[in-house]
Amino acid sequence: MKIRTIEWKNNKIKIIDQRKLPDNLQYFYIQDLKSLSQAIKTLQIRGAPALGAAAALGVYLGIKNLRLNNFSKFKKQLDNVINYIASSRPTARNLFWALERIKAVVLKNKHKSISYIKRIIFQEAKNIIEEDRLACRNMARFGAKLIKNNDRILTVCNAGKLATIDYGTALGVIYKAKEQGKRIKVYASETRPLLQGARLTAWELKEKRIDVTLICDNMAADLMRKKIVDKVLVGADRIAANGDTANKIGTYNLACLAKFHKIPFYIAAPISTFDLTLNSGKSIPIEQRDSREVTHIQDRGIAPSKVKVYNPAFDVTPARLIRAIITERGIIRPPFKKNIQASI
Amino acid sequence: MKIRTIEWKNNKIKIIDQRKLPDNLQYFYIQDLKSLSQAIKTLQIRGAPALGAAAALGVYLGIKNLRLNNFSKFKKQLDNVINYIASSRPTARNLFWALERIKAVVLKNKHKSISYIKRIIFQEAKNIIEEDRLACRNMARFGAKLIKNNDRILTVCNAGKLATIDYGTALGVIYKAKEQGKRIKVYASETRPLLQGARLTAWELKEKRIDVTLICDNMAADLMRKKIVDKVLVGADRIAANGDTANKIGTYNLACLAKFHKIPFYIAAPISTFDLTLNSGKSIPIEQRDSREVTHIQDRGIAPSKVKVYNPAFDVTPARLIRAIITERGIIRPPFKKNIQASI
Repeated sequence: MKIRTIEWKNNKIKIIDQRKLPDNLQYFYIQDLKSLSQAIKTLQIRGAPALGAAAALGVYLGIKNLRLNNFSKFKKQLDNVINYIASSRPTARNLFWALERIKAVVLKNKHKSISYIKRIIFQEAKNIIEEDRLACRNMARFGAKLIKNNDRILTVCNAGKLATIDYGTALGVIYKAKEQGKRIKVYASETRPLLQGARLTAWELKEKRIDVTLICDNMAADLMRKKIVDKVLVGADRIAANGDTANKIGTYNLACLAKFHKIPFYIAAPISTFDLTLNSGKSIPIEQRDSREVTHIQDRGIAPSKVKVYNPAFDVTPARLIRAIITERGIIRPPFKKNIQASI
Repeated sequence: MKIRTIEWKNNKIKIIDQRKLPDNLQYFYIQDLKSLSQAIKTLQIRGAPALGAAAALGVYLGIKNLRLNNFSKFKKQLDNVINYIASSRPTARNLFWALERIKAVVLKNKHKSISYIKRIIFQEAKNIIEEDRLACRNMARFGAKLIKNNDRILTVCNAGKLATIDYGTALGVIYKAKEQGKRIKVYASETRPLLQGARLTAWELKEKRIDVTLICDNMAADLMRKKIVDKVLVGADRIAANGDTANKIGTYNLACLAKFHKIPFYIAAPISTFDLTLNSGKSIPIEQRDSREVTHIQDRGIAPSKVKVYNPAFDVTPARLIRAIITERGIIRPPFKKNIQASI
């Protein structure tokens, strides 16, 4: 089945409603910025690279019908649109990266007509999408070199087709290794609270006929102790200049366990996920989400009412726990600060 | 509110249906062995010490109406009852320990009348229950010495009143420290798949007005990195002669993380949890449970149908990760092999 996580269709943004998976593969159209923001906030669309695409298409959606001939008025409206999209979720770097790209291309063409600028915005959004598609393929090609025949790989959350335009980051590496004829066994950690591992990764891997086994997040250590995991391979939401990496909550848990059990821990992420303005992970903004995500599962209460909850959406894995970062330009290894600087 | 996890009442076993918590505190009666076995298998009653009590009362339930005057016939029926109860769940040592105690007291009185033996079985079951109550109080007294004012303690699953006759093992230590006037903050890890941390521990602690914050299991590492956890304190299902400890799945995860972050990791368990016939944790039988516990939460599917699942109910924490084991006879510290031998 061909899955299209996000695309521009019928003059609207068309996405899969990822909250409905795995029961229903259901697409819907986004026609206005408020719906887009809502779709991002509620994780109907999620995954750092997909959020980059959503942000870029969102800007076009937000300005395409503006009837203005004056650049400074247009620019003011554009800034409003960009700021509104930027306020949807704080952590994934790609979302801001896409907005900055759009902004830059507009400024570069500020002396052109508004209709030309609109076209250039649309073109830049399409470029971002096309580049993400290529980036995933290249990441997969580089990353697959790290994967051996019969590897048993643990992953968390969803860093696959559903998190990108196509193919995926961490899961793209696995798809490529499989295409190369390697036998791969994947353990998908369910990823509480929103269960992207159970709902999205297990589904996506099954669709691709990859051997996948679902575990609860607290079972990873037991797998490692029993030596039935060879590698941990995950995506990323934001990578600082020193290699510290924010990714879905639970990633740092796995990185500690991997170090403890001497299992290599890999990140796969495109260049758009790097934030060289941040020296370390300490400065990465971490989204705190509603306690109801923890106290309820699919609207069913599982905890006493009004219990206090701690619910960060991401954690930060320090660079020293990371064996290598797989990007579309190659594999970055320690020392990360120097090698990230050189690669990006 | 006075909670009675398990008791003998109206000539039946009366238990809380723990599957219904935290929404409903609902008691029900068990009148036959099949219902008891079902209650144990489905975790209507759970927690190693409570399972010891359930097993002991279960034997009495199973033999009290036997109309036999011949010891060898009685013994055969008794063995059937014991073997049936023993087949309910394999890991918690206390269940087998209680059955062995009953068996021993019967053999010691084999020349007495059957009606006397029945009375002695009932008395032994009551002794087991009363001893557990005292053991929890003593564990709490010893354990509370380890707890400092303002400690922030992480626990997993439920090692409280609901896992014992009264007061609890790990949570008993916390209750005692609170009674001593210490300020305590508890983080309860929700404990997938069956969410005993969210459903039982968070509820029990709230009832006792202990400051409790619920987290998903994959958030523990993040808490530790942020230095907002001072100690990890959990119960146990079976402890081998060398100190290796089986407890709810996810416990080993926390033990690795605690070691990694240099946070002390404590076990609280009564003597009845120790199994000195096993040299190490390698020999502890680990129950594998139905995949539906992982793929469904309260009967709602959260994963693609027919996905493969790994679902061990327990994991084994090696002794080297344990700072100390709190028992009713005092605190056992390394070297565990020698000190367990000396204490038990």
